[in-house]
Amino acid sequence: MVTLDKIYHAAFVLKPVARKTDLIYAPNLSHGNSIYLKTENLQLTGSFKLRGAYYKISQLTKEQREAGIVACSAGNHAQGVALAASRMGIRSVVCMPDGAPISKVEATKALGAEVCLVAGAYDDAYNYACKLQKETGMTFIHPFDDDEVIAGQGTIGLEILDQLADVDAVVCPIGGGGLISGVAYAVKSLNPRVKVYGVQAENAPSMAESLRRGEGVTLDTVETFADGIAVKHPGNTTLSIVREYVDEVFTVSEDEIAAAILALMEKQKLVAEGAGAVGVAAALFGKLPVKDKKVVCVVSGGNIDVNILSRVITRGLIASGRNTTLQIALEDKPGQLLGVSRIVSECGANVTSVHYEPSSVNMAVTSCFITIGMETRDFEQIAEIRRRLTESGFQIVN
Amino acid sequence: MVTLDKIYHAAFVLKPVARKTDLIYAPNLSHGNSIYLKTENLQLTGSFKLRGAYYKISQLTKEQREAGIVACSAGNHAQGVALAASRMGIRSVVCMPDGAPISKVEATKALGAEVCLVAGAYDDAYNYACKLQKETGMTFIHPFDDDEVIAGQGTIGLEILDQLADVDAVVCPIGGGGLISGVAYAVKSLNPRVKVYGVQAENAPSMAESLRRGEGVTLDTVETFADGIAVKHPGNTTLSIVREYVDEVFTVSEDEIAAAILALMEKQKLVAEGAGAVGVAAALFGKLPVKDKKVVCVVSGGNIDVNILSRVITRGLIASGRNTTLQIALEDKPGQLLGVSRIVSECGANVTSVHYEPSSVNMAVTSCFITIGMETRDFEQIAEIRRRLTESGFQIVN
Repeated sequence: MVTLDKIYHAAFVLKPVARKTDLIYAPNLSHGNSIYLKTENLQLTGSFKLRGAYYKISQLTKEQREAGIVACSAGNHAQGVALAASRMGIRSVVCMPDGAPISKVEATKALGAEVCLVAGAYDDAYNYACKLQKETGMTFIHPFDDDEVIAGQGTIGLEILDQLADVDAVVCPIGGGGLISGVAYAVKSLNPRVKVYGVQAENAPSMAESLRRGEGVTLDTVETFADGIAVKHPGNTTLSIVREYVDEVFTVSEDEIAAAILALMEKQKLVAEGAGAVGVAAALFGKLPVKDKKVVCVVSGGNIDVNILSRVITRGLIASGRNTTLQIALEDKPGQLLGVSRIVSECGANVTSVHYEPSSVNMAVTSCFITIGMETRDFEQIAEIRRRLTESGFQIVN
Repeated sequence: MVTLDKIYHAAFVLKPVARKTDLIYAPNLSHGNSIYLKTENLQLTGSFKLRGAYYKISQLTKEQREAGIVACSAGNHAQGVALAASRMGIRSVVCMPDGAPISKVEATKALGAEVCLVAGAYDDAYNYACKLQKETGMTFIHPFDDDEVIAGQGTIGLEILDQLADVDAVVCPIGGGGLISGVAYAVKSLNPRVKVYGVQAENAPSMAESLRRGEGVTLDTVETFADGIAVKHPGNTTLSIVREYVDEVFTVSEDEIAAAILALMEKQKLVAEGAGAVGVAAALFGKLPVKDKKVVCVVSGGNIDVNILSRVITRGLIASGRNTTLQIALEDKPGQLLGVSRIVSECGANVTSVHYEPSSVNMAVTSCFITIGMETRDFEQIAEIRRRLTESGFQIVN
């Protein structure tokens, strides 16, 4: 059973290990509420998962420690388990699907775990980990559905109450539900006046659906780039804690998550992964049923692949008018490229790519296309460029 | 004169205004030393500049406050001055060159300043600000060469000694020298055993050159994307403090700065601007003459244009083998694209762009080019793709 006692004990055990991450006021993200960020992306290993894993492992018996531990994760739990086990001198084996990003595999190895790559998806790795556990007697460390793991995550709740005594609401991402279970249990036990909200990706709403139907549901597919919360079914313990202690669960779209990641980078100088940004997305896009309140969003992690981050930025720049691509049909005669270049330059945009294609089946034989990518200031500047191109007789296709 | 007294007084004045930013241990950036980051990128306004500006303005007389203040800046100083002045209910005018990024103009206005766009470059805006000052009697707030401004920045030094009592070395970026003057004065006065190092962009080494020649030099040009430290000549006060209190000044290249920005994002989940990353660049690229020491790098700011950030990421991905572009000459016959696609896919790379060009003057008429961009895992994977393409008879041009 999760108890306040256990959460306080976890806080004591974690003191020399986990960072008490900063709570940062974010005036630039505050639309209608005062938003504060609990920056678990700045936690060791880049996510809150260290807390639960460490506390769980610290509570094993001497025999269990000697037998070692096994876990299954393609992400943050893997690194949390690896660091926790090596700090305590315990052997750890982490099973990962063989398609896991090499950066996560390397990070987990670097933290001292043996990594076991299993052909297939998460479920295959999970099954293999269970098999290993049975064959070897190692202890399986569940990523969320475990009392000690939940108690470890609950220490975040204690820290929030310490850092902002008059907090009105706490917003947590939900994947399997370990984080929000611990935080909600701690916060509601100490101050039932504080609202606790959960947020899921709308493409992976297992907890929201389970609450709606009144029983744990298993989703067929979860397709979100917030891989840290792409979980098909909640835990039994977490579902029952969420039902009792969480006020409401909301969902956010992929585009809302991407916008929140960009806002966190640009306005708060913080890198968040998809899962870590859903709370801020809910706040930014007006999903929370509070106004003029002090709201803490738990930014649960920052382990996002840089290729994906780069795409999020690109999409965000386009969405905010700071990057655009125009496709223009030109007559195939001298001076056309010059004409386009001159207008773009006079409008003050910065050209970043040009593709000039001499023909197309859908066009007159004497026509060609230019596709021109540029950095712009805002939508107004883009409109100005379009207007001037059109006025000069250029046909903008796209 | 800068005194320890003044710095302590600044700390008292700043307590309700500036954040005591977190000092974060960064094991993943620690090559040979234990690196800690003083995260002034997480300061209000996204940089340390608030400290000096606020303290300076707080020390003006009643008459001076009533007359208002004027400043010149295209960047962080503008926002620091704007926020400080509006907190104290003082009118502020900030002169900016008219080419300043619209985001900086808007941010400065949003913080309550009147922005005066001046045609030309920084020097023109500076001259106009001086003219305004003379005509109106407003007080000019210098960005660095001012005792109170320096004392305000010095509060960072006090915080570092408080947060890491046994620090061995502190590394600061240098533009005009205000930050390092304050920090070095505070740190050396309290604990002369601590080394203080400065870092400049090698394309803007005004302080390093001035120290070498024994007098303040003015550079003709400063060409660095670390715009926060693109300063042509150091201040008189700052030069004399740096000469007395700073142990050594190093320079880093543009590529080293870019690599440091990427490392801060990926490994520490922090967004830094170019100027903010030079200390980390110096540590990462082995420029510091210390080993096995506790080194604090001041990450001075995080206000980087997202378009530039996006380019830094792209360059960093290419430099680390996680993104590549291959140009392949194909015979102009059916099945060629399929052949290339199959190899790329079998090697596990993720295609992100394709340009297929049907001819070129330098090639046989029956040839064409394909340019294919892809996300890759590492250089090994790229080599594998190249090897298999070559084995299959494709000619890789680039």
